Amino acid sequence: MRDIAVFSGSAHPELAAEICAHLEVPLHPVRVSRFANDCLEVQLGANCRDRDVYLVQPLVPPVQEHLVELLLMLDAARGASAGRITVVMPHYAYARSDKKDAPRISIGGRLVADLLRTAGADRVLAMTLHSPQIHGFFSMPVDHLHALRELAGYFKQYDLADTVVVSPDLGNAKEAAAFARLLGTPVAAGAKQRYSDDRVQISAVIGDVADKHVIVLDDEIAKGSTVIELMEHLRGLNVRSIRLACTHGLFSDNALKRLSEQDGVLEIVCTNTVPIAADKHVPKLKVLSVAPALAEAMRRIHNGESVSALFA
Amino acid sequence: MRDIAVFSGSAHPELAAEICAHLEVPLHPVRVSRFANDCLEVQLGANCRDRDVYLVQPLVPPVQEHLVELLLMLDAARGASAGRITVVMPHYAYARSDKKDAPRISIGGRLVADLLRTAGADRVLAMTLHSPQIHGFFSMPVDHLHALRELAGYFKQYDLADTVVVSPDLGNAKEAAAFARLLGTPVAAGAKQRYSDDRVQISAVIGDVADKHVIVLDDEIAKGSTVIELMEHLRGLNVRSIRLACTHGLFSDNALKRLSEQDGVLEIVCTNTVPIAADKHVPKLKVLSVAPALAEAMRRIHNGESVSALFA
Amino acid sequence: MRDIAVFSGSAHPELAAEICAHLEVPLHPVRVSRFANDCLEVQLGANCRDRDVYLVQPLVPPVQEHLVELLLMLDAARGASAGRITVVMPHYAYARSDKKDAPRISIGGRLVADLLRTAGADRVLAMTLHSPQIHGFFSMPVDHLHALRELAGYFKQYDLADTVVVSPDLGNAKEAAAFARLLGTPVAAGAKQRYSDDRVQISAVIGDVADKHVIVLDDEIAKGSTVIELMEHLRGLNVRSIRLACTHGLFSDNALKRLSEQDGVLEIVCTNTVPIAADKHVPKLKVLSVAPALAEAMRRIHNGESVSALFA
Amino acid sequence: MRDIAVFSGSAHPELAAEICAHLEVPLHPVRVSRFANDCLEVQLGANCRDRDVYLVQPLVPPVQEHLVELLLMLDAARGASAGRITVVMPHYAYARSDKKDAPRISIGGRLVADLLRTAGADRVLAMTLHSPQIHGFFSMPVDHLHALRELAGYFKQYDLADTVVVSPDLGNAKEAAAFARLLGTPVAAGAKQRYSDDRVQISAVIGDVADKHVIVLDDEIAKGSTVIELMEHLRGLNVRSIRLACTHGLFSDNALKRLSEQDGVLEIVCTNTVPIAADKHVPKLKVLSVAPALAEAMRRIHNGESVSALFA
Amino acid sequence: MRDIAVFSGSAHPELAAEICAHLEVPLHPVRVSRFANDCLEVQLGANCRDRDVYLVQPLVPPVQEHLVELLLMLDAARGASAGRITVVMPHYAYARSDKKDAPRISIGGRLVADLLRTAGADRVLAMTLHSPQIHGFFSMPVDHLHALRELAGYFKQYDLADTVVVSPDLGNAKEAAAFARLLGTPVAAGAKQRYSDDRVQISAVIGDVADKHVIVLDDEIAKGSTVIELMEHLRGLNVRSIRLACTHGLFSDNALKRLSEQDGVLEIVCTNTVPIAADKHVPKLKVLSVAPALAEAMRRIHNGESVSALFA
Amino acid sequence: MRDIAVFSGSAHPELAAEICAHLEVPLHPVRVSRFANDCLEVQLGANCRDRDVYLVQPLVPPVQEHLVELLLMLDAARGASAGRITVVMPHYAYARSDKKDAPRISIGGRLVADLLRTAGADRVLAMTLHSPQIHGFFSMPVDHLHALRELAGYFKQYDLADTVVVSPDLGNAKEAAAFARLLGTPVAAGAKQRYSDDRVQISAVIGDVADKHVIVLDDEIAKGSTVIELMEHLRGLNVRSIRLACTHGLFSDNALKRLSEQDGVLEIVCTNTVPIAADKHVPKLKVLSVAPALAEAMRRIHNGESVSALFA
Repeated sequence: MRDIAVFSGSAHPELAAEICAHLEVPLHPVRVSRFANDCLEVQLGANCRDRDVYLVQPLVPPVQEHLVELLLMLDAARGASAGRITVVMPHYAYARSDKKDAPRISIGGRLVADLLRTAGADRVLAMTLHSPQIHGFFSMPVDHLHALRELAGYFKQYDLADTVVVSPDLGNAKEAAAFARLLGTPVAAGAKQRYSDDRVQISAVIGDVADKHVIVLDDEIAKGSTVIELMEHLRGLNVRSIRLACTHGLFSDNALKRLSEQDGVLEIVCTNTVPIAADKHVPKLKVLSVAPALAEAMRRIHNGESVSALFA
Repeated sequence: MRDIAVFSGSAHPELAAEICAHLEVPLHPVRVSRFANDCLEVQLGANCRDRDVYLVQPLVPPVQEHLVELLLMLDAARGASAGRITVVMPHYAYARSDKKDAPRISIGGRLVADLLRTAGADRVLAMTLHSPQIHGFFSMPVDHLHALRELAGYFKQYDLADTVVVSPDLGNAKEAAAFARLLGTPVAAGAKQRYSDDRVQISAVIGDVADKHVIVLDDEIAKGSTVIELMEHLRGLNVRSIRLACTHGLFSDNALKRLSEQDGVLEIVCTNTVPIAADKHVPKLKVLSVAPALAEAMRRIHNGESVSALFA
Repeated sequence: MRDIAVFSGSAHPELAAEICAHLEVPLHPVRVSRFANDCLEVQLGANCRDRDVYLVQPLVPPVQEHLVELLLMLDAARGASAGRITVVMPHYAYARSDKKDAPRISIGGRLVADLLRTAGADRVLAMTLHSPQIHGFFSMPVDHLHALRELAGYFKQYDLADTVVVSPDLGNAKEAAAFARLLGTPVAAGAKQRYSDDRVQISAVIGDVADKHVIVLDDEIAKGSTVIELMEHLRGLNVRSIRLACTHGLFSDNALKRLSEQDGVLEIVCTNTVPIAADKHVPKLKVLSVAPALAEAMRRIHNGESVSALFA
Repeated sequence: MRDIAVFSGSAHPELAAEICAHLEVPLHPVRVSRFANDCLEVQLGANCRDRDVYLVQPLVPPVQEHLVELLLMLDAARGASAGRITVVMPHYAYARSDKKDAPRISIGGRLVADLLRTAGADRVLAMTLHSPQIHGFFSMPVDHLHALRELAGYFKQYDLADTVVVSPDLGNAKEAAAFARLLGTPVAAGAKQRYSDDRVQISAVIGDVADKHVIVLDDEIAKGSTVIELMEHLRGLNVRSIRLACTHGLFSDNALKRLSEQDGVLEIVCTNTVPIAADKHVPKLKVLSVAPALAEAMRRIHNGESVSALFA
Repeated sequence: MRDIAVFSGSAHPELAAEICAHLEVPLHPVRVSRFANDCLEVQLGANCRDRDVYLVQPLVPPVQEHLVELLLMLDAARGASAGRITVVMPHYAYARSDKKDAPRISIGGRLVADLLRTAGADRVLAMTLHSPQIHGFFSMPVDHLHALRELAGYFKQYDLADTVVVSPDLGNAKEAAAFARLLGTPVAAGAKQRYSDDRVQISAVIGDVADKHVIVLDDEIAKGSTVIELMEHLRGLNVRSIRLACTHGLFSDNALKRLSEQDGVLEIVCTNTVPIAADKHVPKLKVLSVAPALAEAMRRIHNGESVSALFA
Repeated sequence: MRDIAVFSGSAHPELAAEICAHLEVPLHPVRVSRFANDCLEVQLGANCRDRDVYLVQPLVPPVQEHLVELLLMLDAARGASAGRITVVMPHYAYARSDKKDAPRISIGGRLVADLLRTAGADRVLAMTLHSPQIHGFFSMPVDHLHALRELAGYFKQYDLADTVVVSPDLGNAKEAAAFARLLGTPVAAGAKQRYSDDRVQISAVIGDVADKHVIVLDDEIAKGSTVIELMEHLRGLNVRSIRLACTHGLFSDNALKRLSEQDGVLEIVCTNTVPIAADKHVPKLKVLSVAPALAEAMRRIHNGESVSALFA
């Protein structure tokens, strides 16, 4: 396998540039044209032949545009005789369409995995997939990173003596427990009780949070409704402060503003798997970079070194 | 094969409804949800099991949204055990990405054909594909209709004694010749001379047009630049009147307005393979319906009758 | 599609026979030979040509034998020109291998789905899959039944005035909520707190259970450890009685005996998705049959009627 | 990827030998046996394991023999564990079957592309495909060369002051324009007018040819009818001399003799993508070799260098 | 599945016509065009849509022409929306390329099976395949007939009291034994001794043949060398007469003449799986028709009846 | 391609260890877990990324367990981004299911080849496949070794002046002839006469064996019935001694004991493609190792050297 060649779609070129800086390789240009009939055409701006090609594209809004653009980039790379094509997809939005909980609905998480394969993806580098089963939707190898080390590194600046990590959802508390272990803190979790098929409510917090500083950890925050509901509970339990942490800071609509205005919220920490528009930023927001982790994983993939060892 | 079940994506529900009226079958509802993270989910609103399912969706702007929506509809129909799934795609916009005329570019026309297959399409019903080779991009059967009969039927209301059909492009004049034969008129064509790789100019009109009423026929009109250039030539050749005819009336930007304001243009005739926004309509525009032709083709596909016979 | 033809592997012929009785079709014989070198060969004992073939085989111990036998049955049915082949798999044991939670491990749930496809399966009829994402592991249509109606029908013989349904795991409480709704009771759930990556403990029960009759509902019971732990909690909360309910009564080792000897357990109710050896039966065990539900689903699949409507 | 290994089928061993001479690698022997029942068997005469294998075979008459021989060579190379297999196909005859212009006909251009894939081809090196859309028929990467540089290099020996390049067909004049640019001459084109579906006639020459030396450029010349018709027109326009140039000199029947006897024809120039039987040669024929171009492309493919750069 | 539609390639239209007469369906016309560049194009002359299509084509010389023609017919039928396509291939010549007994050779028997699949074959109806393992080369269902009943029916006209069936090869004597059972005679076999890797000789006849009338049965006779060698042995063992019987009468070169001139040969009996040129016929030749058997198998395939029952 | 990484399933770890010793590479650990529900999970104990991975697993009893374990190992290696995966399968038990000699039976030999492909096998290294056609069942490259050199090397210790090699079956005598040539002895063969479809008996031995020392060579010995029957014939022909030789010493039930107790048997020689339980060993048994041959083949595969040359 010859040299690395990194290209970025239009979803998050800043992240791609940062990755390339860490890898000390150029970010090659990509020309995306839109025809009069709204179709896209992609041209990759550097030789791909026998290269170890990486296409950086998180599936962020406008998701459909970015998805089709990525598929066209894959097609172009394959047609240009790429040696191996890895999709670097720090946020896989379609992972949330992972089950058939109503008749005759699409399972986008599986479909998009198949589309990527059809378009030419040989492998995927993903980050903090919404559920661990998503891995099995892909028919090609997936390297699945998480951002716990980045998040933990940040919080270690604080005195964590009276701190507890809280997962909003007991069902997904495994990541929170691992995070707590990195920080050396206890863990707690919100218990979502399901009163009926479509009514879910956080009815309790399992674990001791009273009089504690709380770090709420979730995989992603979009509208923030669940977190806001959890924080109401936490305040009722006399927590001393709240910090929010997540990998994917989607912050749809005015979520960032709403969250930062919540009583007792000291800080909102996320990573840059997803770009955040400048006009959405709030003073309490802290964005950590996953570029070093992605770059290191890409370096190991390229060199045939263990990626799992990266997280041992 | 059991009953027909027709569904429409959000690209052109009016056409789907009209088709269903001709077939005397219901247009089944489709629920398209957009999640907070901008992903789409599709739910088909009627039993698909063992049904002969037709999904109506031309690839019109926003093309990427409509394409992904269509792929999700296919996934849903397949997962719902459809007996056979036919994509009814009156306009296949990606057909224009049909060659690799620069290094490392995507060939969207082939890629999208493969994506449709991956998502579950068993067959395609298309109309007036941009070039006849597109047919070969699909690995499943394609029924390829054209709208010449509809256009010819309309123009037969006129006295065509001094009329000539003109194709803007000699290279694609076959369809114009067939159209002229239906009308009983002679045919002429603009000759695009290529002076260099990127400069093309219509330098002549081959065939006798002087003192004639002209019907210009093209497969699609987007910006209309070629047609406008052709009309300049035609006016220099003293034609008596100009009517424009095409299958796909894309009319991007203000093309309709520009065309209708051209000197000597009496009428602009297209079909409804593509929806035209109400605020774009101009008095000189006449939109013919391809719904009867599509419905008849679908009826024949369902019943196992010859579709090519339809155009004999 | 011509007639139904039902065959059973050696995993659970009693269930297959019962299904056939409900469908009023014969259960066709299958010859499974074992060669001197331990290889299996399958011969289907009835004409499959253009038939709507159903192969009944839950993946129960010895799982590998039953899996390979099923794959050979698929191969035989395909080679015998079956019109369509549906695997009726009331228990999909490999569903538990659904994630890659350690480096370089197999994801059996996806792999076996692919093997079934390779061997010729056109569709799958499954029951109470371990997690809803499993559905997305299959590239062919899956009809996914659950046994809540059967279980609820049984429990309705009791006065349920002071009864509550308890899920052992908040993360999977959706099914319990649906079950409670069928019974007209409230729902509660055990909260598994995760203290570290590998230590999980039920630390609380969310919802009101004191002084109530409890029905514990889980998807499957194998060793029964989780349920036993939950019952200790419940007893501490002064429940009046406990009934256990599950779809898949695997009851490995002496689980049935251990569970029935637990203090306060009145009854253990499961279904016959999995065969239970006669010598394992205990007086408190009640086995409900899913044969009517499977038979009805097969009838609907065969006739092209909605299966989801079956559970509306 | 290890060493290059080049093999030739029986279609054009002279070209293969010439390519190998340029690459300074041996042309490995191939044994093609024909059984009593007319079946072919192929044996490759050198180790293929992990090698970068190139199979040279233009699809020239007898086309079916050469096609099946090529498919068997692919099968043999794949079975012999070739590292990568590139079909070097300087003439892809089936490219002319590229559309479905009548009901129920085969589209050989797409089918043969699929057959090559099935037999084991990883990539294709082609030359001057009949239409640019053919590229999209292949599901594997295609490097598509043309022979304009070779042809232009030859004609530059002449004083081209009063010379014009003429394409027989305006629809395909892009290549002629590029050729003219290389020569520094103007370009003209014959205009094929289509009077009816099956009657085509060249009715005009667009561009200034009077009193000029003409170089007629086409992609291939088989029977030569179109060129002969064009030359009649050109003579009517008082051209001073005619030279014919094409990539693929098929020259079926006695085309070479007929063409060379045409009034005003000074020279017929083609390349050796297709072998020309010795007894067909005429004094006016000049055959240029594409072996250096193919060899250079193969060298670049092997070394992972850009092939498109070769034609920049 | 709708009506049967039968088409014949150019390999053996007489057999196809005879089959159609038995089925009382028309033999639809096929147009095979050969272009100037020697490529073939196929057009099927009747509606295929949803039809149960049968393409009759034994692989007889010129094998490559007939194979590619068949592949194009498959492509045309698939593109024309055939409901199901069955290749009726009474002689599968490539079955003899069934092993890799030298390095880097093709295995044509497997490759051609894959090519048929790629081109669109859904199933195959074959006759007397050279070895039973060939069946496993196909990834689609194969119905494998033999012609023993036809051959036996013919020989029953004789008094068989002192007759013995002789197989030229002990290794393939199973069919001869079945044949002898149909005739009520004993069976014997020639023993081919292998002195070295490439020297094989019939060194003995196992079983009692002295003073008997002999019927030699082989699957196919091409050059006839093995049979001639066997007959020398038989004459040395004082047999009273020899009749030759085979399914596939290939009779390459002047085999028929040579065989009929052998001392003691009374008759040569074969079937019409392969056409025999009129000028090759000899008085001792008797050709039996397999058309009734093929027609009956096709009728059963179409109606979903058991084909194996046909030979019970 | 980076380093070799060898893993062994649980079928024959001794052989894998011996191979690794020859290759001077470590045998990496594999963890096979069995869940409470009898499902297997595999974890490979060393980095596979871009490695040239070899999975050693003969299909020996319990075959189904070992087969599914192998498929899971393949899945794990593929998921772990192995560069290339070779299944080293010294005994392919399912090769005996190679034909469809009864209606509606499975063809396990082909099915298992397809399952291996689906699970991720890129190539197979096999030994002495039961019939040469099996090779064609695989869609990936197969390197097919035999053990004749090992067996011949052993027997050369004896004075072979009056020795003859005997194949139990004339139909498979090619290997015996090659073996005899290595030893410099003549060859003979048992003639299995088939009296009816299901009654086969050795009725003669072709070739001179009287007063000779005999080496009986077969590919595998399971129950040993054929060999025992052959030895009865040989004793009737006054052979002086008998030695048995085979590649695959399956020795089911008490075959070893029965064979060693046969009159005149001096020795039973097999290889270690299949493990032989310690309590089955008999004094007359001699087991030769194929580990050096497999290791050498693996070395050549890894280095891209010819494997066929190994047996020239």
